[in-house]
Amino acid sequence: MNKKKITLPDNEIPRQWYNIQADLPNPIPPPLNPATNTPISPDMLSAVFPMNLIEQELSTERWIDIPEAVLEKLLMWRPTPLYRAYALEKALDTPARIYFKNEGVSPAGSHKPNTAIAQAYFNKVFGIKRIATETGAGQWGSALSFACNQFGLQCKVYMVRISYNQKPYRKMLMETWGAQCVPSPSPDTNAGRKFLAENPEHPGSLGISISEAIEDAVTSKDTRYSLGSVLNHVILHQTIIGLEAQKQMASINEYPDIIIGCAGGGSNFSGLALPFVRDKINGKKVKVIAVEPASCPTLTKGPYIYDFGDTAETTPLLAMHSLGHAFVPAPIHAGGLRYHGMAPIVSRLLVDGLIEAKAYTQLQTFAAGVTFARTEGFVPAPETNHAIACAIEEAKKAKEEGKEKVILLNWSGHGIMDLAAYDAYLSGKLEDSAMGDDEIQKLLQDLSKYPKPK
Amino acid sequence: MNKKKITLPDNEIPRQWYNIQADLPNPIPPPLNPATNTPISPDMLSAVFPMNLIEQELSTERWIDIPEAVLEKLLMWRPTPLYRAYALEKALDTPARIYFKNEGVSPAGSHKPNTAIAQAYFNKVFGIKRIATETGAGQWGSALSFACNQFGLQCKVYMVRISYNQKPYRKMLMETWGAQCVPSPSPDTNAGRKFLAENPEHPGSLGISISEAIEDAVTSKDTRYSLGSVLNHVILHQTIIGLEAQKQMASINEYPDIIIGCAGGGSNFSGLALPFVRDKINGKKVKVIAVEPASCPTLTKGPYIYDFGDTAETTPLLAMHSLGHAFVPAPIHAGGLRYHGMAPIVSRLLVDGLIEAKAYTQLQTFAAGVTFARTEGFVPAPETNHAIACAIEEAKKAKEEGKEKVILLNWSGHGIMDLAAYDAYLSGKLEDSAMGDDEIQKLLQDLSKYPKPK
Repeated sequence: MNKKKITLPDNEIPRQWYNIQADLPNPIPPPLNPATNTPISPDMLSAVFPMNLIEQELSTERWIDIPEAVLEKLLMWRPTPLYRAYALEKALDTPARIYFKNEGVSPAGSHKPNTAIAQAYFNKVFGIKRIATETGAGQWGSALSFACNQFGLQCKVYMVRISYNQKPYRKMLMETWGAQCVPSPSPDTNAGRKFLAENPEHPGSLGISISEAIEDAVTSKDTRYSLGSVLNHVILHQTIIGLEAQKQMASINEYPDIIIGCAGGGSNFSGLALPFVRDKINGKKVKVIAVEPASCPTLTKGPYIYDFGDTAETTPLLAMHSLGHAFVPAPIHAGGLRYHGMAPIVSRLLVDGLIEAKAYTQLQTFAAGVTFARTEGFVPAPETNHAIACAIEEAKKAKEEGKEKVILLNWSGHGIMDLAAYDAYLSGKLEDSAMGDDEIQKLLQDLSKYPKPK
Repeated sequence: MNKKKITLPDNEIPRQWYNIQADLPNPIPPPLNPATNTPISPDMLSAVFPMNLIEQELSTERWIDIPEAVLEKLLMWRPTPLYRAYALEKALDTPARIYFKNEGVSPAGSHKPNTAIAQAYFNKVFGIKRIATETGAGQWGSALSFACNQFGLQCKVYMVRISYNQKPYRKMLMETWGAQCVPSPSPDTNAGRKFLAENPEHPGSLGISISEAIEDAVTSKDTRYSLGSVLNHVILHQTIIGLEAQKQMASINEYPDIIIGCAGGGSNFSGLALPFVRDKINGKKVKVIAVEPASCPTLTKGPYIYDFGDTAETTPLLAMHSLGHAFVPAPIHAGGLRYHGMAPIVSRLLVDGLIEAKAYTQLQTFAAGVTFARTEGFVPAPETNHAIACAIEEAKKAKEEGKEKVILLNWSGHGIMDLAAYDAYLSGKLEDSAMGDDEIQKLLQDLSKYPKPK
């Protein structure tokens, strides 16, 4: 019998996270204070994040211990199974061996709880009682609600109003875990009240929600803010994915030729890829591909600049590939990939040639997702479909070349809460989505005045 | 580190199903032809089911081999993990050790694919090209859609119209797997046209949907009908749950004192319980509890009679506990438990005192479900909440008695597609639901004229 699932026993769960900042050929440029264009100091962030997470953000230690209390929670669904996609391989008639790491088995259905649990824990031990955050489509908000519930913290989620109205299930999930979820702009903050005064039915935006959550954190007692991607400590917490995958691949004497992950803010891609990028830095041959939507082509089209992390210009300037913090991506179903920037770590790896990037249109990704659902059975999230589209392309290439490539992709989450998107695709109502050349040229011109990292 | 998940490697998946018909102290009475009240012969069912499944239905062989092709598909998500519910135990401050078998990890999110895969396979090898079925809330329809897709069979699902309109996501899931799902009554069958002529907006019922699916099966080329619970062969396919659980419990030197499963048609309960009931027949001490809704108290209140399996009186008469085939249960969210009858095997075990039964109200079960979601993290299906309510009650009893009871429950599926029910519960809008004594007395009087099994 062929081995379909490669599991890892609970007692082999990795005990340390991998911090690629120890191994980067070129360190990531420091975040800048936008008022002075000088590097910010750790204590400037202390009203927003607890100091123990700020220390992780800046650390260059290669290995950082995962606390026992965090491991205990991660064991609720980790180690996640690694699957061999036999049925997909057969449908593609490819000599490639395709593996996927199933992060959809977490209680929230995606990789997001890996960092939500860690962040809730570090806030807890720092004495924080309450966390405020923003959410767009709701994946991060639900993951953090789950994690706060696990550690007895209060959680308030500012959810972009248009998503709040369109996606009531995510809000219900947050409330089932005991969190408070309000549509943003809300009457609960100065920022929210300002936008509501302009328009009582304001649809909201991620930028506004971030402003509300940060304001809440810095003005409320024992409260801090939490972010679900982009930052170094978030990416650190996700590396458990790749560390597990390395053990699982080794247990069947495989090593991937190609690593694939979808990239919005960059944490899911990094989670799988960084432990393998470490091998690459140490001389191993492996192709590492970050996949993004053609409608939000941050890595494939965006310049490497200093830009704000949010639309409302409340964050420090980060050195990253960006389409500009004013950029509004098309309303594709892969809500988790609609971010104007990219994690500084991922951006730096692209600049240094250690990873590459590809973009696919919405219809290409759903075609891939349906192929996956009708072979491997599990219905992938719209974000995950980007990684699958790339894996299928690489598997076809392997067939043309007659090569037994080993492909490993990060199956970042399930699509059980995104079935309306599949319905739209199957009934021919889903719009394709990609930025035009003219649009990109204009954007690049606008971005040419942004500061460049050294 | 405490072991949270007890996994079973792929190569230890059970290779045979367990058929309790070999071990029953009293065999189940034969199904009767309602026209003659005499036992039906196998060939009378051959227009409805393929002969290989009819043979399984009647078999008294103790062990039945699982074909390699079925095992290969089951390995997509099986063996399922067994979990120790440490957080729930801690919240209850109980000396009991609570284990749950997580059947929610299947692509369809419940235990239903265990038999859907087997049924699709046996239809396939019998030369059938297409399967027709009915579905209420949509769980069985989606499981069979998935299974038919895996074996390249066409699938048509007649979905009760009111559910079709209220629960569009389940329909979308079926279509994502390539099945056709129509609201029932439909214009596609004589039965459907008859009801539509009476009322073009007819809300439908499970009885009408069964009539449509059976008519489709017996009148269409190379088509058979498929049922998701109640029948012996369906229950047989589910025993893989309990067989895995036995291996997993043995691997940590545990044996359950109490086995708990929710029971609608009986297949999920049986799947976990029957291998342990075998031990009980052989002298082992174990308490086995089937849990049902107080609004549909088939086992706790219904008499043991010969009754139709469907409202439309198209099936043979089955010897079972029943509330009468005309009984319409309250519209509780646990749609999978809204069945008037109970599997003949489960009914017989209750008559013979090998199992017991308990009923809980809707509010009791959701209180349990929220406790579970806020401790163990995973959000359970409304059906599963019944088993959890019972497990919590037993764990509290163990505390009162100061006994280290080992409780094992079947976590039959996740509730990610049932969040509206949680929302109603948390906002105080969920109605409680239980049959009144008067209502039950009247029902028992009506049922007193039904034939009694010997």
